[in-house]
Amino acid sequence: MARIVQKFGGTSVADMVRIKAAAATVKRELDDGHQVAVVLSAMVGVTDQLVGYAAEAGGAHYSSEYDAVLATGEQGTVGLLALSLQEMGIQARSWLGWQIPIRTDGVYGKARIENIETEALERCLGAGEVPVVAGFQGLGPDGRITTLGRGGTDTTAVALAAALGAERCDIYTDVDGVYTSDPRIVAKARKLEKITYEEMLEMASLGAKVLQTRAVELAMKSGQRLHVRSSYSDAPGTLVVDEDEIVEQEIVSGIAYSRDEAKITLVQVADKPGVAAAIFGPLADASINVDMIVQNVSAGGKTTDLTFTVAKGDLERAVETVAANKKKLQYKDLISDSDVVKVSVIGVGMRSHAGVAQRMFTTLAEKGINIQVISTSEIKVSVLIAEEYTELALRALHSAYGLDAE
Amino acid sequence: MARIVQKFGGTSVADMVRIKAAAATVKRELDDGHQVAVVLSAMVGVTDQLVGYAAEAGGAHYSSEYDAVLATGEQGTVGLLALSLQEMGIQARSWLGWQIPIRTDGVYGKARIENIETEALERCLGAGEVPVVAGFQGLGPDGRITTLGRGGTDTTAVALAAALGAERCDIYTDVDGVYTSDPRIVAKARKLEKITYEEMLEMASLGAKVLQTRAVELAMKSGQRLHVRSSYSDAPGTLVVDEDEIVEQEIVSGIAYSRDEAKITLVQVADKPGVAAAIFGPLADASINVDMIVQNVSAGGKTTDLTFTVAKGDLERAVETVAANKKKLQYKDLISDSDVVKVSVIGVGMRSHAGVAQRMFTTLAEKGINIQVISTSEIKVSVLIAEEYTELALRALHSAYGLDAE
Repeated sequence: MARIVQKFGGTSVADMVRIKAAAATVKRELDDGHQVAVVLSAMVGVTDQLVGYAAEAGGAHYSSEYDAVLATGEQGTVGLLALSLQEMGIQARSWLGWQIPIRTDGVYGKARIENIETEALERCLGAGEVPVVAGFQGLGPDGRITTLGRGGTDTTAVALAAALGAERCDIYTDVDGVYTSDPRIVAKARKLEKITYEEMLEMASLGAKVLQTRAVELAMKSGQRLHVRSSYSDAPGTLVVDEDEIVEQEIVSGIAYSRDEAKITLVQVADKPGVAAAIFGPLADASINVDMIVQNVSAGGKTTDLTFTVAKGDLERAVETVAANKKKLQYKDLISDSDVVKVSVIGVGMRSHAGVAQRMFTTLAEKGINIQVISTSEIKVSVLIAEEYTELALRALHSAYGLDAE
Repeated sequence: MARIVQKFGGTSVADMVRIKAAAATVKRELDDGHQVAVVLSAMVGVTDQLVGYAAEAGGAHYSSEYDAVLATGEQGTVGLLALSLQEMGIQARSWLGWQIPIRTDGVYGKARIENIETEALERCLGAGEVPVVAGFQGLGPDGRITTLGRGGTDTTAVALAAALGAERCDIYTDVDGVYTSDPRIVAKARKLEKITYEEMLEMASLGAKVLQTRAVELAMKSGQRLHVRSSYSDAPGTLVVDEDEIVEQEIVSGIAYSRDEAKITLVQVADKPGVAAAIFGPLADASINVDMIVQNVSAGGKTTDLTFTVAKGDLERAVETVAANKKKLQYKDLISDSDVVKVSVIGVGMRSHAGVAQRMFTTLAEKGINIQVISTSEIKVSVLIAEEYTELALRALHSAYGLDAE
């Protein structure tokens, strides 16, 4: 008998048909003699609708009321799944964040889980009952409802699995696992049997939408194995595990991309100490995340060109923020471009293999694709290229690193 | 400075436009120097949608999960109104049933409020903040969410007004008060300035949908004045008050009707002791409410005809329940008819005036309307007639009792 936490995402509880399918999945594990706890998202689209209402009410910023409104989505689905399970003759009950409680730090809209009290849930599991837990929500120190931010239900699931000492944490979603690249673009993309936490983390933060970054971090920290799998079939998906568990590690395990990128270039900015701080300080104050940064060596020595990227949605504000300091920065020109894409090659094998980046540059050059910005970490190389080359670049790199399915 | 509880129904929080209008109504009272607590329903239609989901999930019967699902509607509107108030610069916060808490007896789907702890709300009001309370929901003894049944938000509002010692309890709705009859049918219907609790109670239970019966009972018991008024204007509506407050009481204050009636006649049922119990016992066991009952004197002395009414939705089950006992009851025939309407004349003045019922019978006879069943109480006379005469009967009675507007 194993203890399993199952998480169903928004598309897996999209309507009563899908909720009943989720109930059948719970039953399958129970029939195999396992203990099951379930964590649910809101029905797909519901959270967006609630965010829309809150924005109309004037609550575009996070607040206690914003969270109270948003938390209703998960409250609905947990009740409906518990009902469906009961209808199948299975003992079940819903648990809201405040009932368990799942205690958070009280930061509205992006709270962090501080502690999950497991006493009540253990009693529930011990009595042969299936606890159906609302994801995405918790209880702040002041007794108010707090939500964990987008994709927070993944985090709830991983935190709960860790707290309950679950053997498995199954993440049910509308794809059947983690792929070497986006199968909608790269027809030869393969489903990975296993992937390391580190790689998954890079993939999540580089555009793959399968798992929330924080959830992967948490799983890595607590050593919680994740199983990303389809809610439409019982075929095995992808295991997210520790590096030790993967015997024959590929050098590169995936090619990710993100279209949510925009580039800003400052032409002939003064090349003297303090300039970078004068540019990026105000951006940080405006909560604009800067990703890649390159600064060229200046020709004459007096000025330099500086390029950096931000999320597309932040471009306008970023340009305004920089332009407000034009006098101080003394740049000649500001060029912005949102027709760019970031393509990344990811693999823990890179650490011990030379030439991975070189192969990327060569492959792109052979296809006539110009690299605008490069950024590297221990296990990934990212480049910024013109958006129109996205598909060409992904397919070429997928082949070049030997990832194509037979 | 007065303390006011304002309740907004489903149509008065139907969308963000209406929610902002409600916020403006709150502000108007605050600007006049009053303390305001607000109680809200879910957006109109939302509860029906949730009931539909729950039914699909197999939860047609009331249960803890049914209640958890249904309570989400009010949680959404209170958050959105609190946001709207904050946007207008007004201190406000939402309160869910479990946060106050509003303690109930724990009967899912139709819980009764046992106690409202006012400490937190008093602190909130004392600090100049507007508490925005979710109607329809409370906390059961086991820490689960319970709902109060249809129209339960009225009950929450009245109970809260009583608990907080509010001077006024304003019920904002989509009509501008209580009328002498349904204005959609009786063009000459007048808005009543005042009506007694007893009359309002009869009207509510006889088909007028302005206020929930339990809320009126509770108001009567606690002596809480209610003000039924429109959320579309600030014109005065109708005050629901104690009889003492109405100096010149009309004999009849309103004509109500209900189409939700069905009639069952048992032809030639045995006329002996125990028969009524044998008919109505099983109906009660099946939770079918029987309203009017008439039994004619039998011609020969051996058998009699017995007629009773039930809600339209219960007719099929009622017929099945009676038919299952046919052997025991030995009736000759069972006739059911759902094309009937109950028309009622209501007024506390009846107690001290003779001839009120007689005038009703005469008026209907003059119009050639046959009375099928009669039932009377201290302050009302109800008759069952063929549904096709509804409009004719209402208008004739409205004139006959001198209720027509000039």
